[in-house]
Amino acid sequence: MLDLGRRARAAARALALASTETKNAALLAIAAAIRERAPAILAANAEDVAEATARGQTAAFLDRLALDARRLEAVAAAVESIAGLPDPVGRSLARFERPNGLAIERVATPLGVVGVIFESRPNVTADAGALCLKAGNAAILRAGSDSFRTSSALAAAMAEGLARAGLPADAIQLVPTRDRDAVGAMLTGLNGAIDVIVPRGGKSLVARVQADARVPVFAHLEGVCHVYVHADADLAMAREIVLNAKMRRTSVCGAAETLLVDRACAATHLKPLVAMLIGAGCEVRGDAAVQGADPRVVPATTEDWPAEYGAPIIAAAVVDGLDAAIAHVERWGSHHTDAIVTANEAAAARFLAEVDSAIVLHNASTQFADGGEFGFGAEIGIATGRMHARGPVGLEQLTSFNYRIRGTGQTRP
Amino acid sequence: MLDLGRRARAAARALALASTETKNAALLAIAAAIRERAPAILAANAEDVAEATARGQTAAFLDRLALDARRLEAVAAAVESIAGLPDPVGRSLARFERPNGLAIERVATPLGVVGVIFESRPNVTADAGALCLKAGNAAILRAGSDSFRTSSALAAAMAEGLARAGLPADAIQLVPTRDRDAVGAMLTGLNGAIDVIVPRGGKSLVARVQADARVPVFAHLEGVCHVYVHADADLAMAREIVLNAKMRRTSVCGAAETLLVDRACAATHLKPLVAMLIGAGCEVRGDAAVQGADPRVVPATTEDWPAEYGAPIIAAAVVDGLDAAIAHVERWGSHHTDAIVTANEAAAARFLAEVDSAIVLHNASTQFADGGEFGFGAEIGIATGRMHARGPVGLEQLTSFNYRIRGTGQTRP
Repeated sequence: MLDLGRRARAAARALALASTETKNAALLAIAAAIRERAPAILAANAEDVAEATARGQTAAFLDRLALDARRLEAVAAAVESIAGLPDPVGRSLARFERPNGLAIERVATPLGVVGVIFESRPNVTADAGALCLKAGNAAILRAGSDSFRTSSALAAAMAEGLARAGLPADAIQLVPTRDRDAVGAMLTGLNGAIDVIVPRGGKSLVARVQADARVPVFAHLEGVCHVYVHADADLAMAREIVLNAKMRRTSVCGAAETLLVDRACAATHLKPLVAMLIGAGCEVRGDAAVQGADPRVVPATTEDWPAEYGAPIIAAAVVDGLDAAIAHVERWGSHHTDAIVTANEAAAARFLAEVDSAIVLHNASTQFADGGEFGFGAEIGIATGRMHARGPVGLEQLTSFNYRIRGTGQTRP
Repeated sequence: MLDLGRRARAAARALALASTETKNAALLAIAAAIRERAPAILAANAEDVAEATARGQTAAFLDRLALDARRLEAVAAAVESIAGLPDPVGRSLARFERPNGLAIERVATPLGVVGVIFESRPNVTADAGALCLKAGNAAILRAGSDSFRTSSALAAAMAEGLARAGLPADAIQLVPTRDRDAVGAMLTGLNGAIDVIVPRGGKSLVARVQADARVPVFAHLEGVCHVYVHADADLAMAREIVLNAKMRRTSVCGAAETLLVDRACAATHLKPLVAMLIGAGCEVRGDAAVQGADPRVVPATTEDWPAEYGAPIIAAAVVDGLDAAIAHVERWGSHHTDAIVTANEAAAARFLAEVDSAIVLHNASTQFADGGEFGFGAEIGIATGRMHARGPVGLEQLTSFNYRIRGTGQTRP
C-alpha cells in the first residue's frame, strides 16, 4: 500500500503539470477504452453479481452492483462529459496589488492525491477517477469487495486511456486487493501520500472513515433535512415543495425527513399538508399537534427527530415561530440541507443566515442538494464538514491554491 | 477538557450570529481590559519570567516570554487593530443563477472552534483569540507552561472584554491547566468540538501536532525557501533580493535558506553574490562550483539542501537551467516560499506555475511571506498544507462557507 501511495504522489506531480488538452484527451481515451472493453467489463461484472447472489445479497444491493450495456454506456458518457467541463486548475481566484507594487494572484492548483473508498456501485470507479483526473489529482480507489472484478476491469480501461494520452497509469490506481486492511492503511494517509479521503457509501462506511481517518475527509454522515413551513407560507407552494422534498426520491441524502409547521399557520396549513403526504403514501410521525390534525398520524418519539429514514416516512412537528424552527433544525438536524417556505423576506433572510447547514433554501425543494443542480457538472459527494469543501464537492472543491507574486525587485524593509 | 469543548461549541454558535458591531465592541473592550489590568498581567509575567530563569531557560527564550509596559501596549493595540479589519463573515463569495431561476449564493461563515497550541510567547493569547473572535470562531487556547500565568491574566482580561460586549466568556477559553495531557486531548478534537488546530511554536511542537492530530491542522513544519537566480537575472536586482531574502531577518520562516545560481550566469553573478553574502556576515555552504567562486565558501553536504538554518548561513548550488532549479526546489524544499530572479517573463511564468509552494515570487524577496505583507491585516500562521488554507492564514482563511438558495417555489423534476 505504501508503494501505491508513492506512485500516486509521483503521478500527481505529472498531472498537476498536464495541460487541459492532455487531461481531456485522457478522459476521452478512457471513455473509448471503456466502450472497447465492454465485453470484458460486463463479464467481470457478471462474475461479481453471481458471487454476490450466492452470498445472499439483497435485490437492491444486486441492482446497485449490476451493469448492462446501457449502464456501461452511461459510465463512458459520464467520463466524456467531464472532459467537457471547464478545467478548475489555473483559475485566477483573486488578484490584488500592494502599495509596494507587488502583484499578488491566488491561483487554483490541484489538491494532490485523493483517496476514494466506495462500496458496491462500480461506476464510482470511473466517475471518481475522472473527476480527480480533471482536477489534476491522482486517485487511489478502493472498491467494495463485491464489485472488485468489475472495478478492476474498469481500472484497466482507465489505465489504458491514461497511457494513450501520455499520462502515467498511476494517476488512477485501484487498490489491487480485496483485503480489508487496505482501508485502514488508506485512512492513515499512506505516510503522507493521501491528501483527502472521500467515502462513498452507507452510513457505517462513512462513520468508520470519519472516526478513523488521520487525513481530511469530505463526507456527510447523514442528511436529516427539514422543510419549515413558516407562518407566511403560501399553502399551494408549501404543498408542492413538501411533496417534492420528501417524495420525489426518498433515498437521496437531500430528501426531507422532518416537516416543521409554524403554529401561526397550522390551522390552515397543517391538515392539508399531512393529508397530502399520507395520500402520497408517506407515513407521518407527528407530535401531539400534528396527531390532532389527522387520525392517521403515528405518534412521534424523540427518536424520530434525528432520524434519516431514507424511506416514505416523515417526522412532523408544530413549532412556535421562526426561532423555535431554527432551534429545532440546529438541535436535531445534520447540517446538510434545510428549507423554509415563506412569503416573508425577513423571515427567509434570518433562516438562511442562522441555520448552520451546508445548503439552506428559501422557497425551493431540499432535493436540489446535488452538484448537478448547482451547475457544478459532476460531484464526488456532498460534504457537511466546514473545512475546505462544504455542500456539493465538484471539480472546484477538488482544488487547492497558491499565491503567485510578481515584483520588480522589491525587498522587504 | 471535554467540558471546555462543549462550552466552546455553544459559544461558537453565539459568535456566529453576532454582528460585526458586537464583535468589534468586544475587541475594543478586550484591548481596554488589557490596559486596565496591565499591573496584574505584568506581575503574572514577572512570576513566569522568574520561574523560567530559575529553570535555566535561554536568554532568547526569556526574551520571547517577557512583557513590559511597551510590549503589553503593543498587544492591546494589535487587538484594537483587528477591530479595524473588515468582517470576513457574511461576505458573498459567489453568486449564480440556474436556468430554473434558483439564485445560489456562497456566503462566508465561521469555521467553528479553533484550537491554538503555542509555546512561550504570551502575546499569542491575545492575537489568536482576537483573530478567532473577529472571524466568528470560538477559540481554545493552550499556552506553554512557561507562560501560563501571563496567559491566564491575559485570558481574564479577554473574558472581561467579551462580557462587556454581551458575548459569552467561553468564546475565548484558555486551557486552565499546565498538565501536558491537555495537548493530547486537544489533538483528538475533544469529541468533535474542535474544527481545526493551529500550532504556534517550534519544530518539535508542530511535528507532534501534525503527527498526532485527529482534526485538520493549519501549520508549516519548515520554511526551506529558495532564491533561484536565473540566467537572465539582473545582477543588481539579484544582489538586493538575495541579501534581503537571507539576511533581513534570518529567523523568520520566509528567510531564504538556499541560493541557486544558473550555470549560464554563474561566471558573472556567482562570485559577487557569494562575496556579498560573506561580506554581510553570512556563512556560505556551497557545492563544488560555488566553492570555486570564493575560497571562503564551506563545502556543502547533502544535509545542507533540506536544512532550515534560521541563522546567517546559506546553502548554495549552481544549477543547469530552469528545469534543474525547479527539480531542486521540489526535491529539497518545504513547499513554503520560493523565488526566481529573472528578466525573462517566460522563465518566470514557468517557475510560478511549476513550483508547488504556497507562495512563489518573481523578482521579489521571500521575506514577503507574511500575512501583513499580503494585506491580510493579521495572520494566525502560515500553512503549507493544501486543504482549506495555504500560505498566510488570516481572517478569510479562518472562515468556511455555505450555500444560500433563493427560489420561487421550485421543485426538482
